[in-house]
Amino acid sequence: MTTQRTRSLGRPTLDAVAARAGVGRGTVSRVVNQSPQVSPEARAAVLQAIEELGYVPNRAARALVTQRTDSVALVISESGERLFGEPFFAGIVRGIHAGLLDTPMQLWLALAQSPAEREKVEHHLTNQHVDGVLLLSLHDADPLPTLLEQRGLPTVLGGRPARMLQPGAQAANFVDVDNAGGARQAVEFLIGRGRRRVATIAGTQDMGVGITRLAGYKQAVLDHGGTVSEDLVAYGDFSEASGTAAMRRLLEITPDLDAVFVASDLMASGALRALRDAGRRVPEDVAVVGFEDAEIARQADPPLTTVYQPVEEMGRQMAHLLLALIRRDELEEPYVLLNTHMVERASA
Amino acid sequence: MTTQRTRSLGRPTLDAVAARAGVGRGTVSRVVNQSPQVSPEARAAVLQAIEELGYVPNRAARALVTQRTDSVALVISESGERLFGEPFFAGIVRGIHAGLLDTPMQLWLALAQSPAEREKVEHHLTNQHVDGVLLLSLHDADPLPTLLEQRGLPTVLGGRPARMLQPGAQAANFVDVDNAGGARQAVEFLIGRGRRRVATIAGTQDMGVGITRLAGYKQAVLDHGGTVSEDLVAYGDFSEASGTAAMRRLLEITPDLDAVFVASDLMASGALRALRDAGRRVPEDVAVVGFEDAEIARQADPPLTTVYQPVEEMGRQMAHLLLALIRRDELEEPYVLLNTHMVERASA
Repeated sequence: MTTQRTRSLGRPTLDAVAARAGVGRGTVSRVVNQSPQVSPEARAAVLQAIEELGYVPNRAARALVTQRTDSVALVISESGERLFGEPFFAGIVRGIHAGLLDTPMQLWLALAQSPAEREKVEHHLTNQHVDGVLLLSLHDADPLPTLLEQRGLPTVLGGRPARMLQPGAQAANFVDVDNAGGARQAVEFLIGRGRRRVATIAGTQDMGVGITRLAGYKQAVLDHGGTVSEDLVAYGDFSEASGTAAMRRLLEITPDLDAVFVASDLMASGALRALRDAGRRVPEDVAVVGFEDAEIARQADPPLTTVYQPVEEMGRQMAHLLLALIRRDELEEPYVLLNTHMVERASA
Repeated sequence: MTTQRTRSLGRPTLDAVAARAGVGRGTVSRVVNQSPQVSPEARAAVLQAIEELGYVPNRAARALVTQRTDSVALVISESGERLFGEPFFAGIVRGIHAGLLDTPMQLWLALAQSPAEREKVEHHLTNQHVDGVLLLSLHDADPLPTLLEQRGLPTVLGGRPARMLQPGAQAANFVDVDNAGGARQAVEFLIGRGRRRVATIAGTQDMGVGITRLAGYKQAVLDHGGTVSEDLVAYGDFSEASGTAAMRRLLEITPDLDAVFVASDLMASGALRALRDAGRRVPEDVAVVGFEDAEIARQADPPLTTVYQPVEEMGRQMAHLLLALIRRDELEEPYVLLNTHMVERASA
């Protein structure tokens, strides 16, 4: 009885509840965890003991001891607009869910668009809240990867911020698509079909994906004896409207272009509109190649020839890499780079 | 020194770190919370003391004391497909973010489609993890609202599960649109324009939103001396394809219908396709009214006359109601019911 009394002075334990209810620890645990495999009598006895002792089932306290929360966060540095407007994010989230399916890990998604929202989410990303973090859609100035590294939280990036592409850049765990390779494939495909004035619509240049696809374009042009001219490059922000605007600019400054590699399907769909408005036939006058193989590539008029990137697989690999980091597995490579391939439709 | 020594045997405290570093508690707190307002020297001293003492900045431990996590969860009982495919969810999430903007609350979003995923998320929704929960898109069999109530977690429902519409149903905190009123408005609008055979395409009948919009249709028909006939009712699941299929069925069983009230814009867009395929002119032969005033209502051909529901406001009110519950405010009403209004375009 002394033991019992001493215990009740501190925080009541699961053992104390079990003793008071006259059942085993497992039964208390099942009642607390809402498992159906408990008799109504045992359940009533446990609930009464819990009330009498003021016991609080305590996952946070468990996390302090086991250092495990069984939670991972996915932080997307974008507005809800882009998150819900682009199929890319749906595919990534589907892949991450699939990668965590057979684990106890719960995925929590947070949007952080403004600096204020980013600061808020930063404060919550500690190792008492989550076991690891997945970061998506990083712009160059984003301080999150560095902060999380300082806190020792396992972190996997989906795609790389631009500064990580520099030689000697800090190593990090990431899953990315071979964007430069995919862009090269697209340009080589166009050159192989006899196109001679191949322009490009590049994406945002403070994101790795924007920089590397432009780099792949330039490399392919140089490899085939061409020269990289500023008259052949326009920039968008990955939105459809920005693709239309960029294509209009290209047609103004370089009316004799006969092909364009566009750094995303959504921008390519916008470019098709500008070509239609200008009376250019696709692919007869201007061949168009996109990047992603999104649903919109199939629905476009004409359907888009594009570079397939394995979006869902990217999400799955992000989950697997994060789980390996949390388990402290030995990794052969700290990152995963996924291949792309051409999908030929009517636009090129 | 004895005190200091005793402390260092237990978990090192913030006070111990401050004493070791020769700074105040506030400075330690600012370093831990990554605040920029700390001199480099003080920061270095604090970091050294943290390392020497093995101090772990501990939000979970704080939560045990203050009973506050400054986190709220949004659980959506849908697949990623529907979440990302329907603008409704984007609007709700935007509204919730706006409602939490000036608070320290961080929103965490979880998807729970399958029973396994729902069970996983349930285990994480305790008052050591979050201060409150927002639930969206509840189907009737969903046990989450009852479970959360048992755990004493403040919970707000977006929309009501069907069983909560029964007389004498358990009270709960919810924010909903006056769906029955909106449906009545739509049918009265059609009858007012001289339509005599008004059919309806109803939504999923295990969701409150599906049941109440159908109830509003029936009430308006009865109020105007009509009879509610099974030949005038078809059912969809709120998807575009289901709207096309339901409209085809209606045209088969009741070829002389001259109007249809459709329980969502997405299904109405599908219904327009079926009417086009059947050679019926809209609105001359068949008038169509949707529900939501989503982007697709403006883009439809012809643009949809529809019932506007304030989606973003619904999200904002959900956030405000949850914050009030967490603060234990006295509430005049435990729920919020938002009004709708007609938006007239070309389809009716």
